[in-house]
Amino acid sequence: MTGAGDPGATDPSLPPPRRWALRIEYDGGTPFVGWQRQPGATSVQGVLEAAAARLADGRPVAAQAAGRTDSGVHATGQVVLIALPDRPGRAWEPARLQDALNFHLRPHPVVVREAAPAPDDWNPRFSAILRRYRYRILNRRARPTIDRSQVWHVERPLDLDAMRDAAALLVGRHDFSAFRAASCQARSPVRTLDRLDLERDGDEIVVRAAARSFLHHQVRNMVGTLERVGSGRWPPSRVGAALASRDRSEAGPTAPPGGLCLVAVHYERSPFEPSG
Amino acid sequence: MTGAGDPGATDPSLPPPRRWALRIEYDGGTPFVGWQRQPGATSVQGVLEAAAARLADGRPVAAQAAGRTDSGVHATGQVVLIALPDRPGRAWEPARLQDALNFHLRPHPVVVREAAPAPDDWNPRFSAILRRYRYRILNRRARPTIDRSQVWHVERPLDLDAMRDAAALLVGRHDFSAFRAASCQARSPVRTLDRLDLERDGDEIVVRAAARSFLHHQVRNMVGTLERVGSGRWPPSRVGAALASRDRSEAGPTAPPGGLCLVAVHYERSPFEPSG
Repeated sequence: MTGAGDPGATDPSLPPPRRWALRIEYDGGTPFVGWQRQPGATSVQGVLEAAAARLADGRPVAAQAAGRTDSGVHATGQVVLIALPDRPGRAWEPARLQDALNFHLRPHPVVVREAAPAPDDWNPRFSAILRRYRYRILNRRARPTIDRSQVWHVERPLDLDAMRDAAALLVGRHDFSAFRAASCQARSPVRTLDRLDLERDGDEIVVRAAARSFLHHQVRNMVGTLERVGSGRWPPSRVGAALASRDRSEAGPTAPPGGLCLVAVHYERSPFEPSG
Repeated sequence: MTGAGDPGATDPSLPPPRRWALRIEYDGGTPFVGWQRQPGATSVQGVLEAAAARLADGRPVAAQAAGRTDSGVHATGQVVLIALPDRPGRAWEPARLQDALNFHLRPHPVVVREAAPAPDDWNPRFSAILRRYRYRILNRRARPTIDRSQVWHVERPLDLDAMRDAAALLVGRHDFSAFRAASCQARSPVRTLDRLDLERDGDEIVVRAAARSFLHHQVRNMVGTLERVGSGRWPPSRVGAALASRDRSEAGPTAPPGGLCLVAVHYERSPFEPSG
């Protein structure tokens, strides 16, 4: 709770900024263009930074996220770092800071689920040891109604066992070039996929993916490829061949963004409550 | 599949109407005023009847539901009866009928999940032996984002054990006058509540209620009362006293509609597939 002041602060009349870790949730659909700030567009980052600036006498506040989710992609457990000056004479209490940010985030579909002092050497992106995503496929004849912005609607019946066989070929340490967006800026295409589980829940097939980090579009490209297998158009072995090819055109299409949700980010030393 | 023709049909040139059971899902929020048709308003019944009329050369088709859900209340397993003439020369195949209705239901957030021939003496409302509702309470400090139209947001922490103690007092055969809307048209206030279970699921408390039938607002009034107990304002015993009083003013407030969903209706002889 007694985080060190920022040594770069030049105005000694200003309270030193304190680093806060935020666990946030948002509806990634309209009006957002995704996490990342873009000129002339509404982004989750922009809305969060504007809310934080309201607590900093209007001075700009930068927010850094564990993962930059694309437009339409949801998050229930995105993790963000901001640096915010204390109010003159008193430090923010975490729950008060949460409430104040949530007040200024209205009416946007973004909330802070938890605020906690950030450890000195902690970074939401680089300290992450595991990211967990969930992808929801609604696998039935009738289109979705209540959850229409949160699922990918696939009409033809999917073979869960075949999809699981294919998913097993992707787990582990591989060059995932075949599942990487052209726009991906990562230096290396090698990633270790710790988990790619599928389960049926009523009319849905829920895919759960976990890795220290993912390439851009990697989860959606894996899901789009598994759908090819589940629908019977591709044998599971073709997914192994696509992986080995390291050629994006050998894997399946990119699944739509609405089914995807960033569920949690894990850290060796989490700033948050154990239950969070 | 060879349902008897309607003996009341007078025009022998018209194919006889066939009775169909439909299992439907809808988002009970905007634009709907609820299940029931109302002049000048958009209702689930009105939208469904209009879609069915498109398959009957524009002749009116009446739809009867297992339960008339209020505005804002969702359904994933509402059950409906319609009587529809066969197309000249060929009977509807269930999956084709489902698709045709779903086509004409666009763009409304209503779909037919399953269509099946209705047994002769079957009625969606009067043949029901069990109705199952789910109520979702989001119990956390931050307001909801992704599921904002599907949960009741309760900020103060709820004591699940106390709520369960209170719920146990409501299970069984009772006069539920204290939990009955003034508008309720049922002849008797006596109902048998078979199940009122509560479980925590992350930040949510999910209430599951089952009975052959419910009074109007009964589930929402029970949930609003359990919230009083969970928040510590009422001891669980007060719920037993409210029940015994048979006085609506002794029970808690009506929980908001968005958290409620009609999940399933059971029949001794279900028209639907066993998995449905």
